[in-house]
Amino acid sequence: MNTTNNNQPQVVVLGAGFGGLTFCQAISHPTAQVTLVDRQNHHLFQPLLYQVATAGLSAPEIAQPIRSILRNKRNVNVLLRDVTGFDLARREIWLGDDVLTYDYLVLALGSKTGYFDHPEWEQYAPGLKSLDDALGIRRRILLAFEQAENSADPAERESLMTIVVVGGGPTGVELAGAFAELTRRVLKRDFRQIDPRQARVILLEAMPRILRPFSERLSAKAVTQLTRLGVEVWTNVRVETIGDGFLQLADGRRIKSANILWTAGVIANPLTRKLGVELDRAGRVIVNSDLSVPGHPEVFAIGDLALVRNERGQPVPGVSPAAMQMARHTARLIEDDLNNETTNPRARTAFEYWDKGTMATIGRSAAVAQIGRLEFSGWPAWAAWLSVHLIFLIGFRNRLAVLLQWTYSYFTYKLGSRIITGLNDSRKTDQDPDEEPMVCSSKK
Amino acid sequence: MNTTNNNQPQVVVLGAGFGGLTFCQAISHPTAQVTLVDRQNHHLFQPLLYQVATAGLSAPEIAQPIRSILRNKRNVNVLLRDVTGFDLARREIWLGDDVLTYDYLVLALGSKTGYFDHPEWEQYAPGLKSLDDALGIRRRILLAFEQAENSADPAERESLMTIVVVGGGPTGVELAGAFAELTRRVLKRDFRQIDPRQARVILLEAMPRILRPFSERLSAKAVTQLTRLGVEVWTNVRVETIGDGFLQLADGRRIKSANILWTAGVIANPLTRKLGVELDRAGRVIVNSDLSVPGHPEVFAIGDLALVRNERGQPVPGVSPAAMQMARHTARLIEDDLNNETTNPRARTAFEYWDKGTMATIGRSAAVAQIGRLEFSGWPAWAAWLSVHLIFLIGFRNRLAVLLQWTYSYFTYKLGSRIITGLNDSRKTDQDPDEEPMVCSSKK
Repeated sequence: MNTTNNNQPQVVVLGAGFGGLTFCQAISHPTAQVTLVDRQNHHLFQPLLYQVATAGLSAPEIAQPIRSILRNKRNVNVLLRDVTGFDLARREIWLGDDVLTYDYLVLALGSKTGYFDHPEWEQYAPGLKSLDDALGIRRRILLAFEQAENSADPAERESLMTIVVVGGGPTGVELAGAFAELTRRVLKRDFRQIDPRQARVILLEAMPRILRPFSERLSAKAVTQLTRLGVEVWTNVRVETIGDGFLQLADGRRIKSANILWTAGVIANPLTRKLGVELDRAGRVIVNSDLSVPGHPEVFAIGDLALVRNERGQPVPGVSPAAMQMARHTARLIEDDLNNETTNPRARTAFEYWDKGTMATIGRSAAVAQIGRLEFSGWPAWAAWLSVHLIFLIGFRNRLAVLLQWTYSYFTYKLGSRIITGLNDSRKTDQDPDEEPMVCSSKK
Repeated sequence: MNTTNNNQPQVVVLGAGFGGLTFCQAISHPTAQVTLVDRQNHHLFQPLLYQVATAGLSAPEIAQPIRSILRNKRNVNVLLRDVTGFDLARREIWLGDDVLTYDYLVLALGSKTGYFDHPEWEQYAPGLKSLDDALGIRRRILLAFEQAENSADPAERESLMTIVVVGGGPTGVELAGAFAELTRRVLKRDFRQIDPRQARVILLEAMPRILRPFSERLSAKAVTQLTRLGVEVWTNVRVETIGDGFLQLADGRRIKSANILWTAGVIANPLTRKLGVELDRAGRVIVNSDLSVPGHPEVFAIGDLALVRNERGQPVPGVSPAAMQMARHTARLIEDDLNNETTNPRARTAFEYWDKGTMATIGRSAAVAQIGRLEFSGWPAWAAWLSVHLIFLIGFRNRLAVLLQWTYSYFTYKLGSRIITGLNDSRKTDQDPDEEPMVCSSKK
């Protein structure tokens, strides 16, 4: 490919999430040529994805074209391509019929929703990882209310107006809280035949408490705040089966719902299986302390798809700050290698994760935050959450637009993104035979 | 259906465009029950649709949920449904298996792209009428540049980097101008292998001049401004064939392009054929002077799908101000009928179109405007165009967001909406079998 036709050191980065993007921004070397490969043309601000799913924000407000973020990094080349395989021994990456060779490889392919041993559940209970997931969930739920408005069958209405979120982690809590507000506040006056405030939002957690990364005290506070919003929090419930429009629990209870969402599991990008290196149960690459892949000092794995243990032996969590820290660490190591023109893994410094704390938002002026020993909840935690996320939103325009929209929504409860696209022409626009292949096919 | 289970006068409005929506806002009667039916959940600000197609604005910025616009009109009931047929004699509208009965019917179903006798061209040269059209065009063109970046074949690159807009009307001119700016200004530094400024944007017009609604002088000015932006304006060219990736002209010339867009024809919503009333060549309903359908004083046709002649015998143009004027006229007539409890078409006043003037934008601070005898172009026309469109944008949030984004884009040339969705998961999210039927199916 045109990107490899020279003798400068080639650094290939796979994935333009927080890890891959931060790496491209951090690495600076006079001759190194960086190639960033992603199957999407945009970087996604994952922490706010639930806002798109719940019609609080529109897609472009949390996504930026990768090219425009990196337009001033002249040594970075962006490819919108699908990675299909690897040959680490020959230092090759396969992109369909094309081959990309590298001197250094940074794996930042992230993670996807995991359904444990039940892949068949995905069709009935979508996860929330990509913009398309978010837009699909939004469409599904808005259409459910439209159909409920049209339906005279009480049982059908109830199933259409029941939203079940499986998984009491931060994403599940954020989704449940946002859906409660959407139905209780935003949609309340939009319909004539149904009362959206009657909608049920149920949050299911298999463990005794939600938000396990947080202290018991904050978990309890989160439950209180969710309940106040109208969310039913069910803990200690195990899902036995998920089918079309229903969910069967291990204790025999059965929930009929047209809107089942899954946030209970995460696995590394399945491409890791094609690496031929050791993985953990979640498909994550078990890396050396310097984040390099065992046996391949020129290959690094960062972010969600790397299993890294902190000094206390616990795995570093799959959160954006961790991915960004790993990216900067890797960039430094590669620069050092290139400068010394040697590759000596033993000389490399180990990665150390600095935990800046965790927060989860629950709703308007409701959140929980844990920063080291410091714990807080309610309005202060929400304000902290808001500012942190606005600060880290990539792209000034988005930050301003998001702040504007939130301020406006905060006072009016009107959400501006309740648009359903892809209803009638979806085949034409999204199934266009000219398009999909375009992304992959490319001549030598 | 639950909406017709009472004895109050039933007014059914089909289509939530400028006409249908304005009617719902204008009609006020103590007992009249209004039901607004649309296949989409949003009202679309058509005049800015080209901005979505050219990645200048994001979909929610020019679309508003119909329900939220009408949330305070308690006598208006909104149905997200597909109209499948009519029985005017029995005053019935068919929505799949459901039947909607009416005392008054307002047809405001709008128009769609027309390909004259060549429906097969649609697959190769999409039109621009819906949000999905716009998002599809945006995706198609952004992907073409991505593929050009990947391609080493000069011929393929040229075809990928050639944008052909067929039709020199306002929409065609706006699209061509916006694409010229997108390639010349916005994308210019985003790629490494290609120079987007080399992209060709060709505007084809069969007549001797573009923008026929305007004076010859303004047409000429428009050509000058388009050329300055980098658009090639070809007039007097007739299209013979459009195929996959090429366009054959009557004069023998052949253009290879992966991005052919069609704005050369408009026909009324094909549903008019199911009315069993007289139509013109473009499928428009030929209405009485009061906008009622001949033989059906209780049925009115407004907006793009009505053929109305002004006092000089010329058809009223298919523009939003005309549709809104017709809507208010119809609302008044129906109120009068209901108040007198009689229906006497002869007593009705005829519709009179007040032409407020026409404008077309060409690019940043480039436009043409004609208001009666007054003609202007360039910056003043653009400023006028901008303010008129911002004033008429429905929804405060959108207006503010659009203004903010435009101001920002104006000074930075960065466009924030260059996001491609529906690349990988499009089948899952847009082909979800649970979704599409939801819109139509409904129990009695």
